[in-house]
Amino acid sequence: MRNLVLPFLLLASILSFAQTRPVVNLVKYVNPMIGTAKMGHTYPGATVPFGMVQLSPDTDTIPYEVNGKYNKDVYKYCAGYQHDDKTIVGFSHTHFSGTGHSDLGDFLIAPTTGKLQLNPGTEAKPESGYRSAFTHANEVAEPAYYKVKLDDHNILAELTASNRVGMHQYTFPKSDEAHIILDLMSGIYNYDGKTTWTFVRVENDTLITGYRQTNGWARTRTVYFAMAFSKPFHQYGNKDYSEAQVYKGFWRKFDQTKNFPEFAGKKLRAYFDFKTEEGEKIKIKFSLSPVSTEGALANMRAEIPHWDFDRVKREGQAAWNKELNKVVVDAGKDDLVNFYTAMYHSFLGPTTYMDVDGKYRGLDMNVHQANGFTNYSSFSLWDTYRALHPLFTIVQPARNNDMVKSMLAHYDQSVHKMLPVWSHHANENWCMIGYHAVPVIADMVMKGMADFDANRALDASVQTARTRYYDGLDYYMDLGFVPEDKNGSSVSKTLEYAYDDWCIAQMAKKLNRQDIYEEFSKRAQNFKNVYDAQSGFMRPKLSDGTWKKEFDPLDTHGQGFIEGNSWNYSLYVPHAPAQMIAMMGGKLQFAQHLDSLFTMELPDKYFENTEDISRDGIIGNYVHGNEPSHHIAYLYNWTDQPWKTQQRTRMVLKAMYKPTVDGLGGNDDFGQMSAWYIFSALGFYPVAPGSDQYAITSPAIRSASINLENGKTFTIDVKNQKDKNVYIQKLELNGRPLTRTYLTHSEIMNGGKITFYMAAKPNTKLFAKAP
Amino acid sequence: MRNLVLPFLLLASILSFAQTRPVVNLVKYVNPMIGTAKMGHTYPGATVPFGMVQLSPDTDTIPYEVNGKYNKDVYKYCAGYQHDDKTIVGFSHTHFSGTGHSDLGDFLIAPTTGKLQLNPGTEAKPESGYRSAFTHANEVAEPAYYKVKLDDHNILAELTASNRVGMHQYTFPKSDEAHIILDLMSGIYNYDGKTTWTFVRVENDTLITGYRQTNGWARTRTVYFAMAFSKPFHQYGNKDYSEAQVYKGFWRKFDQTKNFPEFAGKKLRAYFDFKTEEGEKIKIKFSLSPVSTEGALANMRAEIPHWDFDRVKREGQAAWNKELNKVVVDAGKDDLVNFYTAMYHSFLGPTTYMDVDGKYRGLDMNVHQANGFTNYSSFSLWDTYRALHPLFTIVQPARNNDMVKSMLAHYDQSVHKMLPVWSHHANENWCMIGYHAVPVIADMVMKGMADFDANRALDASVQTARTRYYDGLDYYMDLGFVPEDKNGSSVSKTLEYAYDDWCIAQMAKKLNRQDIYEEFSKRAQNFKNVYDAQSGFMRPKLSDGTWKKEFDPLDTHGQGFIEGNSWNYSLYVPHAPAQMIAMMGGKLQFAQHLDSLFTMELPDKYFENTEDISRDGIIGNYVHGNEPSHHIAYLYNWTDQPWKTQQRTRMVLKAMYKPTVDGLGGNDDFGQMSAWYIFSALGFYPVAPGSDQYAITSPAIRSASINLENGKTFTIDVKNQKDKNVYIQKLELNGRPLTRTYLTHSEIMNGGKITFYMAAKPNTKLFAKAP
Repeated sequence: MRNLVLPFLLLASILSFAQTRPVVNLVKYVNPMIGTAKMGHTYPGATVPFGMVQLSPDTDTIPYEVNGKYNKDVYKYCAGYQHDDKTIVGFSHTHFSGTGHSDLGDFLIAPTTGKLQLNPGTEAKPESGYRSAFTHANEVAEPAYYKVKLDDHNILAELTASNRVGMHQYTFPKSDEAHIILDLMSGIYNYDGKTTWTFVRVENDTLITGYRQTNGWARTRTVYFAMAFSKPFHQYGNKDYSEAQVYKGFWRKFDQTKNFPEFAGKKLRAYFDFKTEEGEKIKIKFSLSPVSTEGALANMRAEIPHWDFDRVKREGQAAWNKELNKVVVDAGKDDLVNFYTAMYHSFLGPTTYMDVDGKYRGLDMNVHQANGFTNYSSFSLWDTYRALHPLFTIVQPARNNDMVKSMLAHYDQSVHKMLPVWSHHANENWCMIGYHAVPVIADMVMKGMADFDANRALDASVQTARTRYYDGLDYYMDLGFVPEDKNGSSVSKTLEYAYDDWCIAQMAKKLNRQDIYEEFSKRAQNFKNVYDAQSGFMRPKLSDGTWKKEFDPLDTHGQGFIEGNSWNYSLYVPHAPAQMIAMMGGKLQFAQHLDSLFTMELPDKYFENTEDISRDGIIGNYVHGNEPSHHIAYLYNWTDQPWKTQQRTRMVLKAMYKPTVDGLGGNDDFGQMSAWYIFSALGFYPVAPGSDQYAITSPAIRSASINLENGKTFTIDVKNQKDKNVYIQKLELNGRPLTRTYLTHSEIMNGGKITFYMAAKPNTKLFAKAP
Repeated sequence: MRNLVLPFLLLASILSFAQTRPVVNLVKYVNPMIGTAKMGHTYPGATVPFGMVQLSPDTDTIPYEVNGKYNKDVYKYCAGYQHDDKTIVGFSHTHFSGTGHSDLGDFLIAPTTGKLQLNPGTEAKPESGYRSAFTHANEVAEPAYYKVKLDDHNILAELTASNRVGMHQYTFPKSDEAHIILDLMSGIYNYDGKTTWTFVRVENDTLITGYRQTNGWARTRTVYFAMAFSKPFHQYGNKDYSEAQVYKGFWRKFDQTKNFPEFAGKKLRAYFDFKTEEGEKIKIKFSLSPVSTEGALANMRAEIPHWDFDRVKREGQAAWNKELNKVVVDAGKDDLVNFYTAMYHSFLGPTTYMDVDGKYRGLDMNVHQANGFTNYSSFSLWDTYRALHPLFTIVQPARNNDMVKSMLAHYDQSVHKMLPVWSHHANENWCMIGYHAVPVIADMVMKGMADFDANRALDASVQTARTRYYDGLDYYMDLGFVPEDKNGSSVSKTLEYAYDDWCIAQMAKKLNRQDIYEEFSKRAQNFKNVYDAQSGFMRPKLSDGTWKKEFDPLDTHGQGFIEGNSWNYSLYVPHAPAQMIAMMGGKLQFAQHLDSLFTMELPDKYFENTEDISRDGIIGNYVHGNEPSHHIAYLYNWTDQPWKTQQRTRMVLKAMYKPTVDGLGGNDDFGQMSAWYIFSALGFYPVAPGSDQYAITSPAIRSASINLENGKTFTIDVKNQKDKNVYIQKLELNGRPLTRTYLTHSEIMNGGKITFYMAAKPNTKLFAKAP
């Protein structure tokens, strides 16, 4: 029955969408360059929403480590591109957006003219290698389109992409020595030995296939590819840079360096030679697969069965417009750019991780079939559970359900029987702490949006939360906290486990699983065990139950917190703000404490060794540039001064998000920073995913229509919107006064209208007393 | 129609076989220890006919190369076992039989007691590692069964196998410290860096899965495994010997060395701990797959769904008896041991290379489905085209057809569009010269045995033979010979290409492909282009058409020949002996030349740097220990002195094959040496595979019944057989006098009887004049 009804409903909803909603051109507001300077860690290249291919220029490819030692400079290159750089090494096919650690940069392609050079060369001397100087004046970045002139080679490079295929279009000068270089050693967060194996076949004079295996952030990763040329090369070759070390056997009988169609090794670069006429375009289709070269070829044939570059660009931008139209806003020009670039960044991941036939590689390295869902990977969950996935519950619920199904598949394949921590191309990279797949799942269950088996998802959550050998969980389960002498970042872990456990308890309650509800409700209270009433801060405790003696609540280094200080992290009890506030001295004292956070000063020395925190992301001592504080400005809503939430979030929006290349106050973290922007700009925010409530704040836009997948529209109307009118004077939901500090999920999903009346002074009587 | 008839015929033939042929116990004559001393390169462990798993002890695991330099001592360890050694390192699951270069030794398991030691230790100090001393007195080797007492650990080790699963049975003493070590770094022809990646999961306390990737003789090779224990281990762990170099990322949050269920890296050893009672047996099932760990698990479940070690052994030995009964001989005891051990060695390869569901990894590294055939790998074709595959045309025609189909699949997957040279686990290792898949195919076509598409096979052969960049073929095609100044071993290549080309011509003629027939008939004559009439030898020619000046026809080093000297290799025109004999001065002079070959002396200096040739394999200057001479003793049949073939082959049988551990005069070469024995002992030999004729010689057995797959029996009856009666006095086929020096394939396959009447003196008038 369900199977019969669903497609009809889907069809109906698509029809109603198509009939009633004209698609507005919003792509024009997106500036993919935002965040490419300083520490935004975004990339400017071509990709489609949630696409598997991210085809983007890499401006440097400096190594992650040299002789086993970490190279600090690499941190700037998490997404391969730094706006200050003067050269482009080439264009590679995979990039993370905004992450604070990195990997990928697979299959770098560089078109060149003149003498063949297989080394990338240096920024100081680009002519010493295949890289090229460029200027931003000759550069265009749009959704699904990137263009740049490569000055050293007099080549115009254009890039576009479908989901699984990157398309290159290179306009050459007249040259008898035109080359396309395929660098199979290059990569992001590269190091000597990272590429464990490469296998390449020149199938014919326009088709290459192969794969590359790496040992990086993803420990055991393989990417398969197929590469098609629009024009036959007249000769080709490769160089193995590990020649001296590699066992050659009877392959020595061949000269494998030139026109030999099969090469393999650890350090390979290949080239393909052409003769070009002035203005001649050589196009490349480069498809990826997590499964096989067969899969990569099938992906290419299915997605781009032609050579029409403009069509691929057009279809890619249409795909973007469709997604951007999920929220149609009216706002000032800069705000429009900020908003749609945030939307764009929010839809860059998690990324598709399966072939067109539904096959994908699982955590067990076996090939699996995704039945009835799209398999996604690259879940940066410590970041994205906070606002990105809650945003998806509104504007991408179908995809969010598939993401949960992908997490459950991950769980099924995990030898640990754990949900993903940071799911990364058939790998778990274990980045950061907690088990924050749980709030993503709980959020869908509690909001009534789950089309997965909620009981199975609960079981997976419980099993994950009981994995004793995971990151101090044994102590946490036995003692009620993680002891700092046994496991570092102990307070952060305790606080985040407690929140995740609350999510499990909520689900269990809803699903009538009383024993689980009780067990995890108890665990959810563990935040109390690391609260030091004397100092008024969360503080690391030792396994003997005493507080760690040396303690500086300002310092982010070695104080029991990860990427944060106690000042910020002590406020991390998103599931029980009222309880926390009472514990910390009551509403008034707490509001003053928050005020101090935003107004005090945090000297550099307190965070200079913490990569994810920089001066650009700090307001007072409030660290917006990293995730643990993202809910903090909303906590005033639980005091008697909710208008301060309104003021603070407007201030943060202005300070931390600018329509400039250096416009992001920190790593975008796969859309979490951007999702914070979108929610806050619209006037509400999910402080505790796993509840169905959104804390209300002051919108930064004039109006917005949220075009829901269910065919309904939720409208945000902001009266008297001005920069200085940051305070809500009056609030109406569907024409009736709204007197609480939150919206519920169903109020949004049912469609309707919320009207904000704005003023330059707070209406301190607006809301009923906070809970 | 064909589809309906075939199964019926097969059924009928199976029924007739079952009804009329009692299975004799012939396993008892097989001694797997033969060839394990000196250079036979055989292994004594457990395997089934053409089995994927070869579970066998490795007595040392010294590296192939150290710092990029070849280590000569490794050559003794091609099969992992040397009979003179005093210790056993452990038991690994893959071994080549008799090869002259090597690889494999995957997944070495060592049971130990006492203090855990993860290093193998040294032969001089076995107590310094996990290896153990042993004595041959405590060792038993039978088909599909191997047993040894590991003295250092007081453990009785027993091994057996099904096609894809090795089964271990270890009888422990009472111990609180019993260990099973799984060494994932160990291997045959190992070197630092050979293991490119290893991935392991401890699925539960009795099941491990994973895979290992190596860069060895097979350049890009992955073997997947599943390992099940009969008893749960109480703890486990691993050590990563490349720890310092490996990027760890966020895996650092775990102690991965103990009871952590997922490990990966380049240099891993794992251990599993037990407490055992006196005499307690711990059994292991270890299955392999070329496809996936899922495949390995499915193979285990399908082949050994129980823990009955004796049943696996019994079924393995029954499988061997079934194959050995293909030829039931009567002979002296030593001859029986030699004969059935040769049969055993002949059926050790090519090996199965697919899962129970027909999936296998192809040359393109994609997973393929074998439809209607068993996919085989490990074709050592330069060796085995000579006698092993011709033997299969008689006693294993169904398998030989599947082997050809495997070669055609290889061709389809090859980016070079070449038939296999040395097909090796989804790899082409390119070992040796020529394209000797062609004679295997031609042999089946010309004998009317092909159930593959002969025209497609011909096209594949032609395409292979026209691959200009392969090993001097461009020169060969342009000049009619390979010039030594352009491509070494030029004379060997020219001679072998010419023979392979004749095979193509024969097929083309039969298939009415006139143009191909003409092209390749012409190429088949190229042997003439390297014959130097002045010296009377084949001799390297330079690209300017002159002979290479320095020339010593005795020397095997750098004279234009591979693993042979001109004296032996000059006689390599198997497809045109009469023409060659005329070219070399006529029958009388040629017979004298042959006499010289067998009676002259070849000083050590002429072969001391040629690995595949040793004193043990030489008679005079005749090198039986390596393949190029294998047809030579039969060439007397083309002179007027065919009785010398009879005397020489009987002499070679005695001199080169002994029922002792050092009984083989050279590498068994995956059954080629053994197939020579079988043919020669039965009284006939395929001098030119691709013709349907077998040259007749003096049998060494008293009688033989060849039980054919078609249900017929060909009987060899030898009257007056004695050691001294090496000469055929009279010959009858089905009761009628046979007066030619050859039998045809159909005469054998039609069933019937050949009767040899033997005497101590030659009957010089027996045969009509040679052709």
